[in-house]
Amino acid sequence: MSFDILQDQIRKLKNPTVAGLDARLEYVPPYIVNRYINQYGETFQAAAEAIFEFNRGLMDALCDIVPAVKPQSAYYELLGWRGMEMLERTIAYAHKKGLYVIADIKRGDIGTTATAYSEAWLGKTKIGGSELAAFDADCVTVNGYMGSDSIKPFLEHCVSEKKSMFVLVKTSNRSAMELQDLVAGDRQVYHVMGDLAQRLGRETEGRHGFNAIGAVVGATFPSDLRALRERLEHTFFLVPGYGAQGGTAEDVQYAFNRYGHGAIINSSRGIMCAWQKTGQDGMDYQEAARNAAIAMRDDIKQYITIV
Amino acid sequence: MSFDILQDQIRKLKNPTVAGLDARLEYVPPYIVNRYINQYGETFQAAAEAIFEFNRGLMDALCDIVPAVKPQSAYYELLGWRGMEMLERTIAYAHKKGLYVIADIKRGDIGTTATAYSEAWLGKTKIGGSELAAFDADCVTVNGYMGSDSIKPFLEHCVSEKKSMFVLVKTSNRSAMELQDLVAGDRQVYHVMGDLAQRLGRETEGRHGFNAIGAVVGATFPSDLRALRERLEHTFFLVPGYGAQGGTAEDVQYAFNRYGHGAIINSSRGIMCAWQKTGQDGMDYQEAARNAAIAMRDDIKQYITIV
Repeated sequence: MSFDILQDQIRKLKNPTVAGLDARLEYVPPYIVNRYINQYGETFQAAAEAIFEFNRGLMDALCDIVPAVKPQSAYYELLGWRGMEMLERTIAYAHKKGLYVIADIKRGDIGTTATAYSEAWLGKTKIGGSELAAFDADCVTVNGYMGSDSIKPFLEHCVSEKKSMFVLVKTSNRSAMELQDLVAGDRQVYHVMGDLAQRLGRETEGRHGFNAIGAVVGATFPSDLRALRERLEHTFFLVPGYGAQGGTAEDVQYAFNRYGHGAIINSSRGIMCAWQKTGQDGMDYQEAARNAAIAMRDDIKQYITIV
Repeated sequence: MSFDILQDQIRKLKNPTVAGLDARLEYVPPYIVNRYINQYGETFQAAAEAIFEFNRGLMDALCDIVPAVKPQSAYYELLGWRGMEMLERTIAYAHKKGLYVIADIKRGDIGTTATAYSEAWLGKTKIGGSELAAFDADCVTVNGYMGSDSIKPFLEHCVSEKKSMFVLVKTSNRSAMELQDLVAGDRQVYHVMGDLAQRLGRETEGRHGFNAIGAVVGATFPSDLRALRERLEHTFFLVPGYGAQGGTAEDVQYAFNRYGHGAIINSSRGIMCAWQKTGQDGMDYQEAARNAAIAMRDDIKQYITIV
């Protein structure tokens, strides 16, 4: 079960964080961008190659500090098929560096369509007698607004391919409350979603006590985070909202159980864009990212101990 | 406002239907698949070229019958970047044939990420001083579980680029009820989502009375469809679930207002896979699709009149 692999990597590095790979061209040091624009013009190809060099450099600098990376599909789609090709290379490179890959795709559909998404991102595509992996991530994020029909097809590949998924439960943004906090009977909508995720995953519990279906729970509502940790004992959490969105290490401590297990905290711009604060035009982007990742790890470790 | 364009095309063809372009390789006539596998082997390239020929043939056969096509992103992602490249070609070809393109992507994210999705699918990508369109659809589907933060970035491009979007409100699948039907106060969750969509879109009303934000409302719950048509007067509906999922022409009539306006009904396999029922191994796939599209149009026109 794939959250076992992730939890093992977290324990090895004593670091429950994931680095977002969400590069817009503005986040890439200009010396890299300019080199590729000089070579390929102002094209999707130039942008894709610049971002790939940046991603690769980040992963080289981070792979012995963070256990996982989380490419956000939107930023690759922004470059059309060139971006998607580069995303495939980014995931392959992450695997080469021993990083666990959470593809942040937030897909949500039903039936054969959900199966196609799941095959594309976690499974294999059948072409004649061959089976080929398209994106080959270790884990995806899923939007469950359409109910269990949108979760179960991914669960099949979680089991057959030893992969995992996070369902959006309580997100970190302000307007999350418009739908997710509505009260229906004795539960809020996000409780219903969280309970559904844990129930659907119950036969997939791994060595560390977590099911193959995890939950996205934002750092920006720490009391909800704490209550959900108690409610969803077997559900691994992906926690966005640390840093830029206002969540602190003190807030995110509630995502972990008493062993310091069961959650991974995301930082995207805080690590990727650390070079923008050192005044060296990005020449030091690797060192800046590494220092930011170490600082984040040590910040969180003030509040939790991973046994 | 882009739903004006769509409504005008519907009126011109007297046909409120959209053909899904959701091809798995199994839906493509074997003589086409085999030709490309012979040329390129069992590869993503072979699959992409076979599906492109099929899509193009379908659009050639349908473009004077149906006003719009709806490619479902999942089936293109299933072929990795080769599929996304072919999706770009499919959308470009649809535009060449005068078809309105609804990219069924069901994306849902927040902040800069939602902006990136919107730029990728409805807007333009900035690279240096250039602005390039990645996928360039006319309309997208969006999942609003994260609230208005996930809808507003798309709305910006709907206004600036004269495009449109459909937010998932009440979907056609069985498990839709698990979340969407929960009762919170005096509204069900899908009412809250529908009301939110209509409220956010209110300053974008077009000539035909519809906002740039529409709603996905399934054909499989006709009484809900009828109630939503009354509740959301300015909201254009995309209606899945006709045919394969059990929705009938009698059911979908409730999606339209008294002028026969305000909705478009989707059929995917019913049109794409019509060749599988004629016993000619797909040699007649264009004629079969065209006949199925005409039959669907005439079926629906028994119940509504488009003025």
